[in-house]
Amino acid sequence: MPEVLDALSSRRARRAFSPSPIPAGVQETLWQAVALAPSHGNSQPWRLLVAESESVRQSLFHALSPGNQSWAGHAPLLVAVAAIPANDTVQREPDGTQRELWAFHAGIATGNLLAQATALGLIAHPMAGFDSAAVRAVFAAPPDLQILAVVAIGYPGDPDSLPDDLRRREDAPQGRLPLDILAARDRWSPAHATSMKEYRDRAAGPRA
Amino acid sequence: MPEVLDALSSRRARRAFSPSPIPAGVQETLWQAVALAPSHGNSQPWRLLVAESESVRQSLFHALSPGNQSWAGHAPLLVAVAAIPANDTVQREPDGTQRELWAFHAGIATGNLLAQATALGLIAHPMAGFDSAAVRAVFAAPPDLQILAVVAIGYPGDPDSLPDDLRRREDAPQGRLPLDILAARDRWSPAHATSMKEYRDRAAGPRA
Repeated sequence: MPEVLDALSSRRARRAFSPSPIPAGVQETLWQAVALAPSHGNSQPWRLLVAESESVRQSLFHALSPGNQSWAGHAPLLVAVAAIPANDTVQREPDGTQRELWAFHAGIATGNLLAQATALGLIAHPMAGFDSAAVRAVFAAPPDLQILAVVAIGYPGDPDSLPDDLRRREDAPQGRLPLDILAARDRWSPAHATSMKEYRDRAAGPRA
Repeated sequence: MPEVLDALSSRRARRAFSPSPIPAGVQETLWQAVALAPSHGNSQPWRLLVAESESVRQSLFHALSPGNQSWAGHAPLLVAVAAIPANDTVQREPDGTQRELWAFHAGIATGNLLAQATALGLIAHPMAGFDSAAVRAVFAAPPDLQILAVVAIGYPGDPDSLPDDLRRREDAPQGRLPLDILAARDRWSPAHATSMKEYRDRAAGPRA
């Protein structure tokens, strides 16, 4: 199944959407991919808030940050990824501290969603810039529902439809930390703590 | 690319491992899948702690919970998924609260790892039962490194090598919440808050 790496590597957070709607059967495949994610104790704390009607899509759009509003309105499908912390287990460490798992679990489920969407030829662009309380209000969701991302989903459109600055970002190279920073083999070293910003600044070289 | 759903749906947290080692090139493909995950602002806060030597693998094994020690010692590769919160961005909500993203981001990266491993014919079994401080100590990692999972990775082995109770779990059906609980379309309802435990208890029917 080499297509998995193809899907992961061809995934890009693009912004140029076609207005074509996403057939119901295709949407179901996306939600199935989310449902199949693993969780400790099979707790499945993740939930999806799907904007199905045009009025709810508009309301969810208005809960996005101004930067995201500059492009996400063209996506035919907006979906919030959420989690219910009370439905998840909490791990107790031997030192008495607690480790919550719900955000991590919802991340795994979102990884499934993005990989599946890419494999279906869709753009799936996750956003962190939104007003959580406003997202909850759109769906009349309770205050304990944690919103982790709003994902704009649609088929690829014409990049020339985007403003210049966003069009240039559609195919700009995606910087990634090299594997010798990402993976500590047998022993951690301070180099592994290098942030992406530090790595980029270093790669750009010393300035005058 | 229908293979993505195949990989997601054939993924199981199995416990019967073959002792065959995982070639270095295959390991690289796994780490590449992690590196390709998206993150807000491209922060890439996730890190991998890879037990490369036998002595580190043994030490990491001893940081697992007793339940996980009953089977994970047969996995040829143990890897901890970690994150550096200080390397990630924090979202500010309009109401002044902050939303951290590092656990969610590390979850997306882990989703990539599990999908890629399954596509390569590997078992990748994520565990939440471990002592975080002990995992950090194995790798001499700093206290601000958050450990999210330890993943046991290897090729499938003979299920009959497992104790009876674990062998029965290798192919037991995986319960999943139905899509009408998972996905709220346009409006949340209390049914969406149903936990997996409640759902299972309800499916089992009323008891005498």
